[in-house]
Amino acid sequence: MINSILYQLKGGLIVSCQAEADDPFNSPIGVTLFAKAAVMGGAYGIRSEGIEKTKMILSNVSVPVIGLTKSTFEDGSVKITGSMKEVESLIEIGCHVIAIDGTMRLREGVSGPDFISHVKEKYKTIIMADVSTLEEGIACVEAGADCISTTLSGYTSETRDLNNGKPDFELLKNLVRRIKKPVFAEGRYNTPSDCVQAIKLGAWAVVVGTAITRPRVVTSWFVEAIEKAALDIISDENRDWGGAFD
Amino acid sequence: MINSILYQLKGGLIVSCQAEADDPFNSPIGVTLFAKAAVMGGAYGIRSEGIEKTKMILSNVSVPVIGLTKSTFEDGSVKITGSMKEVESLIEIGCHVIAIDGTMRLREGVSGPDFISHVKEKYKTIIMADVSTLEEGIACVEAGADCISTTLSGYTSETRDLNNGKPDFELLKNLVRRIKKPVFAEGRYNTPSDCVQAIKLGAWAVVVGTAITRPRVVTSWFVEAIEKAALDIISDENRDWGGAFD
Repeated sequence: MINSILYQLKGGLIVSCQAEADDPFNSPIGVTLFAKAAVMGGAYGIRSEGIEKTKMILSNVSVPVIGLTKSTFEDGSVKITGSMKEVESLIEIGCHVIAIDGTMRLREGVSGPDFISHVKEKYKTIIMADVSTLEEGIACVEAGADCISTTLSGYTSETRDLNNGKPDFELLKNLVRRIKKPVFAEGRYNTPSDCVQAIKLGAWAVVVGTAITRPRVVTSWFVEAIEKAALDIISDENRDWGGAFD
Repeated sequence: MINSILYQLKGGLIVSCQAEADDPFNSPIGVTLFAKAAVMGGAYGIRSEGIEKTKMILSNVSVPVIGLTKSTFEDGSVKITGSMKEVESLIEIGCHVIAIDGTMRLREGVSGPDFISHVKEKYKTIIMADVSTLEEGIACVEAGADCISTTLSGYTSETRDLNNGKPDFELLKNLVRRIKKPVFAEGRYNTPSDCVQAIKLGAWAVVVGTAITRPRVVTSWFVEAIEKAALDIISDENRDWGGAFD
């Protein structure tokens, strides 16, 4: 049985409203403004990181919120909701879904699937397993995850080579084929056409973050393209703008 | 002679940080967060609307700021910085450049070019004339405008039919050919490749707003694409998700 919260997300867009480090929007109000704008624009749900930030989002939007916390594994890579204490904090503030790292990497001595199984024994909360491979997805569903997301493909040492800037459509396709739970498309979905492709491949819904909620990164995409084009023109024509414009 | 402020913008991206009506970011702090993120992402300049919002942006970024105010013509269409009083307020807060409607539509009894000529007689401030046609651009330069922007193509009754969602490259090309002042590409530049095209056509710099600073609108672009794709799948396959996932 698919939980009704997951049905609310079906065929829609989830906007990931996260901000880190020195990002000007890294505050509860900063990410909440994005969440409100996303819901006004038609988002079916919000994905949010951090207890204080997620708490403020929850009290300002009426769509389902997928909550998570971030810490790091020993190698410095991102760990998503890595302890029972973090899960409990997210439950306490009222998250509708909790995202958990579903990779085999050990946290507090257990793998992702084992950790998910401990959480599901203790709580009824809906769990989204963030995975990087088909095997992890299968193991997480067997462990009791309610849904899977392709979030981590390209962000583990095992999958780093797959990160070519585009989404991992292959993983999405394989998960949809093999798993009888909703599969969310997430990770480098930066254009509407990437999202259309995901839906065609059977994604339950699509999660978009950067292209909507990281203006600093989006600005850099435009700047790089413009600077390259401007440089090409200067070297091609050795154009003297100063003189031409006097 | 091209003013040094305009040289600072050459070959770069200007991010328009505007928010209106019930947009969650419609506050001085809301648009200032975007301006800070844009500068961190490499923006060469900021374009900003409203006295209080622009004032806060000016005190938080160190790049040139193009300021303007908005009101409406009698037919409800947008009027950009339509009175001497508004120009003076923008000068007072320290805008580096002031954008003024350069169309022939009358405001306080005078056309755009005539108004620009009055402003330039009174103040040394750098004026960017926002135009919708080649003729307006030529008239504004003759009136003393320091630079031209294609901002208004598609937003006057005369040019409304040209608004097909894409930039007006034709106007840009014609202005670059005919005018010996910097021509800024602005209006529906929503992708890096639109911007590359502008630079190739000779734009001095490109102004991007919506794609970077209107998350509500960008969300709606993604939602529309996803919902259409999801609908196509349902009607194509009459797929029974509920059953398939039990």
